[in-house]
Amino acid sequence: MPTAPHVPGSRDRMLETTIDLLRGWGLAGAGINDIVRESGAPKGSVYHHFPGGKLQLASEALVLYAGRVRVFIGEALASRSAPADKIQALFEAFARRVEAADYRRSCAVGAVSLDLGEDIESLRGVLADALQAWMQEIAAQVDLGSAERTRAFAGLVMTAIEGAYVRCRVERSSEPFREAGRWLATLVA
Amino acid sequence: MPTAPHVPGSRDRMLETTIDLLRGWGLAGAGINDIVRESGAPKGSVYHHFPGGKLQLASEALVLYAGRVRVFIGEALASRSAPADKIQALFEAFARRVEAADYRRSCAVGAVSLDLGEDIESLRGVLADALQAWMQEIAAQVDLGSAERTRAFAGLVMTAIEGAYVRCRVERSSEPFREAGRWLATLVA
Repeated sequence: MPTAPHVPGSRDRMLETTIDLLRGWGLAGAGINDIVRESGAPKGSVYHHFPGGKLQLASEALVLYAGRVRVFIGEALASRSAPADKIQALFEAFARRVEAADYRRSCAVGAVSLDLGEDIESLRGVLADALQAWMQEIAAQVDLGSAERTRAFAGLVMTAIEGAYVRCRVERSSEPFREAGRWLATLVA
Repeated sequence: MPTAPHVPGSRDRMLETTIDLLRGWGLAGAGINDIVRESGAPKGSVYHHFPGGKLQLASEALVLYAGRVRVFIGEALASRSAPADKIQALFEAFARRVEAADYRRSCAVGAVSLDLGEDIESLRGVLADALQAWMQEIAAQVDLGSAERTRAFAGLVMTAIEGAYVRCRVERSSEPFREAGRWLATLVA
């Protein structure tokens, strides 16, 4: 095992730093130099742990992030019983999430999606899988009778979450999440 | 009048190029070098026309863009009479807009919002004004009886538009706009 550039835990720290930077500024904010500076890891260790460089690091960070957000969504929905209450609880959870980050962090998937281009087309599948997994989690817990209607409503919820992140960053307010939660709850009441 | 770095029309071309780059990749994609390369304008002319550099250029481009999108939203809503039809027409217009751009461009305001940081805090007001103007346009044309309800619904529409842009970029599909349009139309039917 190579030991020279290896610092215990540095791989995890690099992934955590990348998630944080992606949530803040998308792919442009998560340059190798930024990750090295923010994580405190030696520069050489980035390529030691992630031979594919920035794209590999971003891809693994997004997969890790997507799994956590799926759990976050699942727990918020599971905290209530009635569909309308589940939806309000979900948007309330996101409202608190943006408040806790002082409106300086949003969804890593949303932020990277608006950076997509031919050079990072390889990340699009990771982003699509993340959105798909989150929508499946919503559909699994908010059943609207028919599969098509359930899937379409989960899509609307996902759309509203990503859009509320945009408005919250600009307006420095969590109200867009709560506002969307109230409206969408009426659709399933 | 200084003539050396001045090329007729280059100021307008730089603004148009900046709008296009902001819609594609947010602020990170609209560097001075990118703008010079894409617009074909001489590098010196950027600072001739925009002494404040990139932030001045981005700010003016966003104001110009915001005005056009307000007209776009206004025309789409005005094309129908009933509130539910207006909403579907609005989302249909955005669906066609992302299709025409082959899912490679989104909302400049959304893309820049997810780049916000202390260094570009000066742009936040421009973004907030843009969202505000668009929501006012929606509220002016989709009256839900009370001022509060009308304002809140316009907010939800705005949230859905910004979120649908995220999903459309990732999914390479315009369905998120049409899906949102169908659901939101039921809220005002």
